[in-house]
Amino acid sequence: MVEYQDILAAYDRIKGIINKTPVMTSRTLNELLNAEIYFKCENFQRVGAFKMRGAYNAISLLTKEQLNKGIIAHSSGNHAQAVALSAKLLGIKATIVMPETSQQVKINATKDTYGAEVVMCKNSLEARHNTTQKLIDKHGFTLIHPYNNDNIIAGAGTTAYEFLCQQSELDMIFSPVGGGGLISGTCIAAKGFRKNIKIYGVEPQNVDDAYRSMKSGKIESNETINSTADGLLTTLSEKTFKIIQENVEQIITVSEQEILNAMRFLWERMKLVVEPSGACSLAGIMSEKISVENKKVGVIISGGNIDITSFFELLDNKIK
Amino acid sequence: MVEYQDILAAYDRIKGIINKTPVMTSRTLNELLNAEIYFKCENFQRVGAFKMRGAYNAISLLTKEQLNKGIIAHSSGNHAQAVALSAKLLGIKATIVMPETSQQVKINATKDTYGAEVVMCKNSLEARHNTTQKLIDKHGFTLIHPYNNDNIIAGAGTTAYEFLCQQSELDMIFSPVGGGGLISGTCIAAKGFRKNIKIYGVEPQNVDDAYRSMKSGKIESNETINSTADGLLTTLSEKTFKIIQENVEQIITVSEQEILNAMRFLWERMKLVVEPSGACSLAGIMSEKISVENKKVGVIISGGNIDITSFFELLDNKIK
Repeated sequence: MVEYQDILAAYDRIKGIINKTPVMTSRTLNELLNAEIYFKCENFQRVGAFKMRGAYNAISLLTKEQLNKGIIAHSSGNHAQAVALSAKLLGIKATIVMPETSQQVKINATKDTYGAEVVMCKNSLEARHNTTQKLIDKHGFTLIHPYNNDNIIAGAGTTAYEFLCQQSELDMIFSPVGGGGLISGTCIAAKGFRKNIKIYGVEPQNVDDAYRSMKSGKIESNETINSTADGLLTTLSEKTFKIIQENVEQIITVSEQEILNAMRFLWERMKLVVEPSGACSLAGIMSEKISVENKKVGVIISGGNIDITSFFELLDNKIK
Repeated sequence: MVEYQDILAAYDRIKGIINKTPVMTSRTLNELLNAEIYFKCENFQRVGAFKMRGAYNAISLLTKEQLNKGIIAHSSGNHAQAVALSAKLLGIKATIVMPETSQQVKINATKDTYGAEVVMCKNSLEARHNTTQKLIDKHGFTLIHPYNNDNIIAGAGTTAYEFLCQQSELDMIFSPVGGGGLISGTCIAAKGFRKNIKIYGVEPQNVDDAYRSMKSGKIESNETINSTADGLLTTLSEKTFKIIQENVEQIITVSEQEILNAMRFLWERMKLVVEPSGACSLAGIMSEKISVENKKVGVIISGGNIDITSFFELLDNKIK
């Protein structure tokens, strides 16, 4: 079980490596909602997402033997890049199993920019697990799970800790919910910092497993994983569900259109490139399901990795 | 003639109104160029561009009589919004003459969000001037010129002053050049702060009037104004040319493709929404026409206002 002390220790471990990301505000939004909204911009984190915090923390805590044998992760997205960069910085070997449907730009970044070995597999959870397990059996790699791992959760929690060091008076914090690593770490960090800070989770309606898990009291799965918020398609794990059950005020859900509207507000009005998953927490606030009036509200922008090729193709065509 | 003291006074006047914008960096870029590059992010300024600084400074210095009669400006872009918002904050009436080709989103912002009266005119410099002059003759409005105005230049110069307060050791600063207000203010501020800071201007090849003016020693005009950097289409004025001639090391030009490449780097790698004009100074650095090796280099990102409707239409279609 992750404790507040683990987050402080994680922050001490990673703070020389990660970016201290800025907190941004919007006058327009504050007037609209009659509240003080503070955005913790992890889109400015290394690799473009908060995942760097947990990955570096977890990997740097492995034993010498584990480091020598190498590590493995399966991910199509931000966790892949975070594990690959952390391994590079620590001078060890990383293998990343990626589904063949992954965006080429993410495969390239993992392989070329961060120097990991990429192994492709079919696009199913089963194929990912099997491919990964075979490589572990063969090479003795250590699996870096994206969220069912105390050291990943503690690293993710440094986001909220750093946020509260920058803006200590928050009444509540909104976080997106995928596998639950970020919101679990947020709970431990915030409740450790000040017990009465309220934590809300925001999840796409299309993959509302955490919302249903909170209702039913057991970990629910998703029948389909059809959401533009591609970082939030996973389901809770035992570790994250327990922390969420004990600490999260409420999980609210948002539609795909609400996610894009929030994302557009962040791009257009706040000039922040944010990915759909990263815009979910703002979408939750804008849905007005939770009253934020006269409150100091923290919003975690989890990442900013999105393929903008199509937009630049339009611009390129204009100048030709 | 604008002096360093005018910039300090302007900053004192406007600092409670404007945003103190952050300075951002990119590890990737620093490694690529073997330099320390610092970005002053005026895309996070109110109305999304540095123009707010000059507009508020100039308007708040008008006499009571001038304020009572109201102000006028002609602009299709950021200056329009900056004048409109400044007038709103100062409780006075603003009229903005906009060419009928202006983006609807900018017309709406000027009219609805900032409450100015918008008068449309044909899309030529002559039509703009004539329409504006007629309204001045009729109503006694005071014209707020976008750059041939000492108080606008002093306000624009607060960008570099604030930048140097945040990052005092800069060896050189790159600024985009349109009418020359921003780079003129940058010269006065930087040379006043520390005499040996070198200033470079960056201009689109397609509208290289400042580049040619520096060569010929007189103000040159552009035959065509065909550039994606829509904030840099204007030519220098007497006031700005004099300051630039005396203080700017060199003006370099960049192609349309170089501008888009720099803009894409800012969006994709740094997660910053920047407009083409705002990406010009980085395009200048990336062109490697000026050596920046081992230097501390300031880059002014002038603004972030760009129509992203087409990109969000693509995303909207995907979720339907």
